[in-house]
Amino acid sequence: MRIAYVALTVGALTVVPHIAAQPASGDTIITTNRPDGRFVSTLGSVRSWMKTKAPRLQYKDASSGGELAAWRDSVADAMARIMKHPSAPAAEAKKVKTVQRDGYRVERWETYPIEGAVVPILALIPDGTDEKNPAKGAALCIPGFAQTKEMLAGENHGDYNLDCDTLPVPGRSAQALMLVKEGLVTVAVDNPSFGELSDNGRADYLLTSRWLLEGGWSYLGYTSWCDRVALQWLKERNDIPKDRVIVSGFSLGTEPLMVLGALDESIYAFVYNDFMCRTRERAFVMTVPDADNRRTFPNSIEHLIPEFLTEFDFPDLVCALAPRPVILTEGGMDRDFDIIRKAYEKAGAPENVEIHHYAKYADQADRVPLDTMPEGVDLATYFRLANVDPPNHYYKAEWVLPWLRKILK
Amino acid sequence: MRIAYVALTVGALTVVPHIAAQPASGDTIITTNRPDGRFVSTLGSVRSWMKTKAPRLQYKDASSGGELAAWRDSVADAMARIMKHPSAPAAEAKKVKTVQRDGYRVERWETYPIEGAVVPILALIPDGTDEKNPAKGAALCIPGFAQTKEMLAGENHGDYNLDCDTLPVPGRSAQALMLVKEGLVTVAVDNPSFGELSDNGRADYLLTSRWLLEGGWSYLGYTSWCDRVALQWLKERNDIPKDRVIVSGFSLGTEPLMVLGALDESIYAFVYNDFMCRTRERAFVMTVPDADNRRTFPNSIEHLIPEFLTEFDFPDLVCALAPRPVILTEGGMDRDFDIIRKAYEKAGAPENVEIHHYAKYADQADRVPLDTMPEGVDLATYFRLANVDPPNHYYKAEWVLPWLRKILK
Repeated sequence: MRIAYVALTVGALTVVPHIAAQPASGDTIITTNRPDGRFVSTLGSVRSWMKTKAPRLQYKDASSGGELAAWRDSVADAMARIMKHPSAPAAEAKKVKTVQRDGYRVERWETYPIEGAVVPILALIPDGTDEKNPAKGAALCIPGFAQTKEMLAGENHGDYNLDCDTLPVPGRSAQALMLVKEGLVTVAVDNPSFGELSDNGRADYLLTSRWLLEGGWSYLGYTSWCDRVALQWLKERNDIPKDRVIVSGFSLGTEPLMVLGALDESIYAFVYNDFMCRTRERAFVMTVPDADNRRTFPNSIEHLIPEFLTEFDFPDLVCALAPRPVILTEGGMDRDFDIIRKAYEKAGAPENVEIHHYAKYADQADRVPLDTMPEGVDLATYFRLANVDPPNHYYKAEWVLPWLRKILK
Repeated sequence: MRIAYVALTVGALTVVPHIAAQPASGDTIITTNRPDGRFVSTLGSVRSWMKTKAPRLQYKDASSGGELAAWRDSVADAMARIMKHPSAPAAEAKKVKTVQRDGYRVERWETYPIEGAVVPILALIPDGTDEKNPAKGAALCIPGFAQTKEMLAGENHGDYNLDCDTLPVPGRSAQALMLVKEGLVTVAVDNPSFGELSDNGRADYLLTSRWLLEGGWSYLGYTSWCDRVALQWLKERNDIPKDRVIVSGFSLGTEPLMVLGALDESIYAFVYNDFMCRTRERAFVMTVPDADNRRTFPNSIEHLIPEFLTEFDFPDLVCALAPRPVILTEGGMDRDFDIIRKAYEKAGAPENVEIHHYAKYADQADRVPLDTMPEGVDLATYFRLANVDPPNHYYKAEWVLPWLRKILK
C-alpha cells in the first residue's frame, strides 16, 4: 500500500480514489476470511464492535437553524457527561507576582482547580488597560504538546517566578504575547504534566493520564477543567469586554478548545490552530505495522477519553461552534470543511468560518480529493491524504492576527 | 530507599517497620513542600485527588452475616456497573471438532460473545462421562499472560485445529488437563489478544485495550464477558453437577475470576493462583524512577478499568467470595489474609479459605510484617515486602489437587 501510494502520487492526484477502491491486502489491514464475517482476532472483533458505535451526535446537515440549535444542546450535554467537570467551583485565585514588560505587564496567578492542586497561570495586560479603559478583547491561550505558558507569554523557559528581566526573542509559539500586543488581555496556561506542572522536570503525560483514567476521569477532562477555571477567572476581570472573550488553541490545545466551546456559550470566537481530522477514522485506517511489526493506536492515552468517539468527532465539534467566529489555520480534508461550512450556513453565519490550508496544499489541485480514508495507511501516507505538512506546524500569526482585527472591529 | 532496604534486610526482618517510619526522600517519592499541601506537579495533584476516592466498598469487618451479605450485593452491583457486560445473550455455541485423547476427549467449540467475534474454546471431558454418569465437577480454566488454551489443555502450541495427535509433555500450566484427570469436565479459554485470538501472531493486548477503552469498555470487561459466556455454556452441559462448578485462574486469569465470582453466585469454588496484593496501593507506592528516569504505572492498560479502584481492591473481592471455598496458592501479605479470614469467619465458613505462601516465605518469620506499604519502592522491593518469589510463579498443582479432592468429596 505504501509503495503503491508513493508510485501513484508521482503521477496525478486523481488516481487516489483508485487506492480506496483497491484496499491494501494482507497484513497491512485487519480483515477476516470467515464467511460469517466474524473475527477470531480480538483486535478485529473489538474494531468491529467499535464500528457499531457510530458517533451518536455526528453532525448531519440540519434542516433548520432550530434543529441545529437543538443538536448543539445535545452535544453540550454529552460533552458535560464525558468531561466530568467537578460540580464544586474552584477556590478563588490569588495573584502572586506582577512584572512590567515593554507595553504590558505580566501577572502570575495561582488557580486551584481541585482540592490537591495549584495551577499557576500568566496573565498579560496591555498598558493603560483598566475598568474605564477596557482591553479590545481577551484570550485564553492553550499551548501544544511540549510548549509552556512561558513560551506562549514570551518569557524565559523555566523562569516560573518571572525573575529574569532579559526576555528571549519571542518564538512562533508566543501566541499570548502576540495577542497582548494586539490590545487583548491574554492568559497563558500550561498543559497538565508539562513545564511548571511537570514532575521534577518529567513530562509525565502518560502516568497522570493513567491515574486520571483509573479514577474515572481523563487527561482532557482534567485539562479542560483547569482551562475552564482559568477562563472563568478571565471572564470575571473588569478590564475586558465580556462579550469578546476568545479561546486560542495550538495543536494539543485545540482539544480543550473544543470542550470549552461546547460547554460555554459565552465564548465569542475560536482560533483552531491545527489540521482538522476525524480522529476516530484516523485510528481505524492507520493499521500498517511499524518497524517493530506492531500495530499501534495513532496517539497515546492522554488523548483517551472513554466514550468520546462514540458521541462525536472533531469536525462535529467545530460544527457545534456555529455561528461563532472560528479560524482554522492548518487545513485538512475538504470533505470535513464542506460539512463545517454547511453548519455555519445553516446557522446563518457562513462568513464566520475562515479556513486556511498549509501553503503546500493551498491550491485545491494539490489536495487529495478523498471522501473516505482507506484502511492500511501509515503515518506519512495519512498526513499526505489529509493534506498535512508536518514541518510547517506552527501558530499561524499571519492568518490569526488579520482575522482577529476583523472580528474585533 | 532501595539501598537502605537491602542493607536492612541483611539483618532481621523486624527492622522493616522502621522503613515505613522513615519514608524515602527526594525524587523517589512524590511530595510537596507547600504549606497548604497542594501540589504544583500534575502527578502529585492527581494522586492526591485519587487518594480522596478511597474504595467505596472496601471490606470492613462486618458486624453480622447479614451485613456481610448486604455488602456482597453492593459489590456485585458495582461490579456489574463497571464491567458493562452486554445485556443481549451470546449466540449459541457450536461444536466444530472432537478428538480422543488418553482417558478423555477434547471438543473444540466456537462461542460468539459479541456480534463481530468468534471465540474458540476447548472442552476436556473424561471418558465415560454422560448425563447418567456426570463428572465429579466442572472447571473453567483461565490462563495467565502469554499462556494459551492449548497450553492449559496439554495440546500443542499453535495447533488450534487439534490436528496433531502427538502431544507434548504437559507443562506446569496445563491446569485444564490436570483437572480433567481428576474427573472434572474442564474448559480452557484464551485471554483476548493472545494465542488464537492474536492479530496474525501479535499479542496486541495494548491496542485492543485501547479500542475497548475508547468505546467505554475495558480489557477486563470484555475478557470477563467472554469467560462468562464460556462459563454459561459449561453450566448448561448435562454431564456435570451444576452445583460443583469451579473457576480456576492463573495470574492475569485471577482478574476475570474475581469478576465472575462477584457476578455469579452459582459458582461453587475458586482457585486463585497468584499472589494477593492491593493493586491500588501498589500503584501508589511504586514511585521510584526507572533506569530511564521515568516513573511508570506498575502495569499496562489491559489492567485499566475506569473506576474499579474507586470501588474495591483485590482483597475485598476475595472477601466477597465468602463463604464459597477458595484456595490462594501464592501468598502475599498477612495483613490482607487476616481480612479475608475474618470475612470467611463472619460468613460462618472459616474452613473454606485455604492459603499457601511461596515456599521461600512459608515460615511466618520469613515474611515481612508490614501493615502499610511505604511509598518509594521499586519492583524488586515491592515483591520482597509483599513476600513474592517471582521465579516460582506457576500453577501450584501440589496445593490445588489435594484441595480439589477435599472440596469435591
